[in-house]
Amino acid sequence: MQNQKKVNVAVVGATGAVGQQMISLLEQRDFPINQLKLLASGRSAGKTVKFKGQDVVIEEATPDSFAGVDYALFSAGGSISKDLAPHAVRHGAVVIDNTSAFRMDPEIPLVVPEVNMDAAHQHKGIIANPNCSTIQMVAALKPLYDRFGIDRIIVSTYQAVSGAGQSAINELQEQSRDILDGKEAKANVLPVSKLPVHHQIAYNAIPQIDVFTDNGFTYEEMKMINETKKILGDDTVNVSATCVRIPVIYGHSESVYVELKQDYDLAEVKQLISDAPGVVLQDSPEEQVYPLATEATGKLDVFVGRVRRDLHHPRGLHMWIVSDNLLKGAAWNTVQIAEELIKAQQ
Amino acid sequence: MQNQKKVNVAVVGATGAVGQQMISLLEQRDFPINQLKLLASGRSAGKTVKFKGQDVVIEEATPDSFAGVDYALFSAGGSISKDLAPHAVRHGAVVIDNTSAFRMDPEIPLVVPEVNMDAAHQHKGIIANPNCSTIQMVAALKPLYDRFGIDRIIVSTYQAVSGAGQSAINELQEQSRDILDGKEAKANVLPVSKLPVHHQIAYNAIPQIDVFTDNGFTYEEMKMINETKKILGDDTVNVSATCVRIPVIYGHSESVYVELKQDYDLAEVKQLISDAPGVVLQDSPEEQVYPLATEATGKLDVFVGRVRRDLHHPRGLHMWIVSDNLLKGAAWNTVQIAEELIKAQQ
Repeated sequence: MQNQKKVNVAVVGATGAVGQQMISLLEQRDFPINQLKLLASGRSAGKTVKFKGQDVVIEEATPDSFAGVDYALFSAGGSISKDLAPHAVRHGAVVIDNTSAFRMDPEIPLVVPEVNMDAAHQHKGIIANPNCSTIQMVAALKPLYDRFGIDRIIVSTYQAVSGAGQSAINELQEQSRDILDGKEAKANVLPVSKLPVHHQIAYNAIPQIDVFTDNGFTYEEMKMINETKKILGDDTVNVSATCVRIPVIYGHSESVYVELKQDYDLAEVKQLISDAPGVVLQDSPEEQVYPLATEATGKLDVFVGRVRRDLHHPRGLHMWIVSDNLLKGAAWNTVQIAEELIKAQQ
Repeated sequence: MQNQKKVNVAVVGATGAVGQQMISLLEQRDFPINQLKLLASGRSAGKTVKFKGQDVVIEEATPDSFAGVDYALFSAGGSISKDLAPHAVRHGAVVIDNTSAFRMDPEIPLVVPEVNMDAAHQHKGIIANPNCSTIQMVAALKPLYDRFGIDRIIVSTYQAVSGAGQSAINELQEQSRDILDGKEAKANVLPVSKLPVHHQIAYNAIPQIDVFTDNGFTYEEMKMINETKKILGDDTVNVSATCVRIPVIYGHSESVYVELKQDYDLAEVKQLISDAPGVVLQDSPEEQVYPLATEATGKLDVFVGRVRRDLHHPRGLHMWIVSDNLLKGAAWNTVQIAEELIKAQQ
C-alpha cells in the first residue's frame, strides 16, 4: 500500500479488543496514513497509544471528531455507531462499521472483500462489516457457490470468548485459574453480560451467543442466516446455525455441512478452496493437518480442512473452517475494505 | 435393587477412569452384589480400593479370574476385551464390554437400555456398550424415531477430554496452567496418543477423535454412524458426524440436526423428549436454561435443549444434547444393562 495518496483515518473504539487490532493492522500493513485519529469514550480520552513510534492521544468521540477524516473505522458498539456514523458521513468520511448497527439495512452494503467488494463500491457513506462467524464461512464457501450453487448450509460453531470482548477473555482466564486451584468459578459476563443468568465458560460449552429470538434461534444464529444471504446476494441459500461459545481465547471454528446445487468432484472442490483469495486449504488427515484455532490466531486468512463427501447425500459436503475472529472476523475485514477502496481510487 | 438375588461382579480395568465410575455406581446404586472382584493389569495388582467400607484388593486379570463371576464389566481397552471376554464367558459370566472390540460384531448385541434392551436379552455371553457420543444421541432421539421415523441426522460434537482417559485430563489441566503462567504448553496425548502428531487441547478445538479412515471421516465419526444404525436396528437412518475434542473435562455436548420422516408438531416433540426414560428436557431459552456439560457432570441422565424447528426444512429439527460421557456414555450404561438383566430374572 506504499506510494499511494495518503488518507486520514479515525478508529472509533480504539481501546477495545478489535480497535487495538485495527491500529496494529494499520501499522503492520503500511496503510497509507496521513493522520491517525484515535477515538473512544470520555473515560479513555487522554490515554496514549503508540503508532509507528509516535504517541497518539486518544480523544473522546463526538459528532465533530470527524472533520477531515477520510475513513472512519467503527468498533465501539452498535449504539455509538448509530449515533456517530451519520456525523462521520456528514463530514465526508467513509464509515466502515464493525457493529451490527447497519448490517441488515438494505441501503448499506455488507461486505467481505473476497466475496462482494463490488457492493462496497456502491456505498452511500457507510459500509457494514459482517458478523465474525459469518465472514469466515462465506469467504470459504464463495468459490463453491460460484461454481456449483448452494442449496443449504448447516453450521455448528465453536466460538472464542474474545468475540465477547476483553471482559470475557478475563473471565475465562480467571475461571480457569480458580478451577485449577480448586476454587469456585465466578460467572459475570458470559453468555451475554446484560442478561440476568451467567454460565461458567471454563471447561464448558455454552449453546447461547447473543439473546434469543422468538423462533428459538439466537441473534448470533440469525446473523449467520441473514447475513450470508445478503453477502451472497441470494435469498435462496438456506442456512441453519447453532452458535456455541467454547473455552477458546482467539479463533472461531465451524463445522459446516453444505449441500451444493450440482454434483461435484471432491478434488475440484479442494482445488477451488485452495485457489480462493484469503483462504488456505489445510487438509492432510493422514498427517493430522487440519485447521486449529490456536494456529489461526494472529493470521489474516481463513483456514479450511476436513473437506469430505457426505456418505449419503450425493451433493453433500462437510468441512471445518477456522479463522481469527478478531482479524478476518473483525479488524482485518474492516481494514481490508478500506485498503480495497483506496486501491480502486488509484 | 435391594431384596434381590445377589450376584458376583468383576470389573476389568478397575483403575481406569471408567472402571472407577463403575465401582462407584455399583456402590451408590445398591447393586445386589455378593462378591466384587476388581481386575486390572499386573502393574495395579495389590493396590486396594474401598467398596462399601471394605478394602478390595485389585487382582491381575487373567483367563482364570472369572471363576464364579456372574457379570464381568470390561473397560480396559479393546485388546484386553478380545483376549479375556471369551474366558469370562467360558466361566459362565455375562460380559458387558465398554470397549469397541465387539460393537459391530453381528452376533453381539449393542445396547442402550432405553432403546433396545430386548436385544440385550438375546445375548450369547457378551453385550457391547456403544461409544459414548452415540449413546446420548440415540437415547434422546429414540422417542422421535418411534413416533415419526428418522431420515437423517447431522451431528457435530463437543467432546470432553475424559473420553480419552486420565492422561488426557492431566494434559488439559497442565496445559491450561502453563498457558495461564505464560509458559509453552506441551502436547503428548491428544488427539490420539499413539499417533505421531499431538495438538494442544487447552484453549483449542481439535477436529480429530480417533484415527482417520479412508473416506475422510474418523473412526469416532464412523462409530456414531454405524452404531446408531445397529442400535436402532435400521440401516436406513443416515448419520453424518463431525467429532471434535474441546477443552471440557467431563460431559459431551452435541449439536444435532434431525430430519424426521413425517411432519411434526414442536410441542409434541418436546413432550416426547420430556417423557422419554433417562432423558431430561432442559429447554427454557427465555430463562437461559439449556443443557451444559458442567451441569450434566455426575448425573446419569441425558439432557436435551435448544429444541427448535429448522427454518427451511419442514421436517427438520435442531437440538443440543449433553450427558456425562463417563456415566451414561460409559460406566452407567454398562451397570444399567447389568441391572436390567438382573431385574428380568427376578
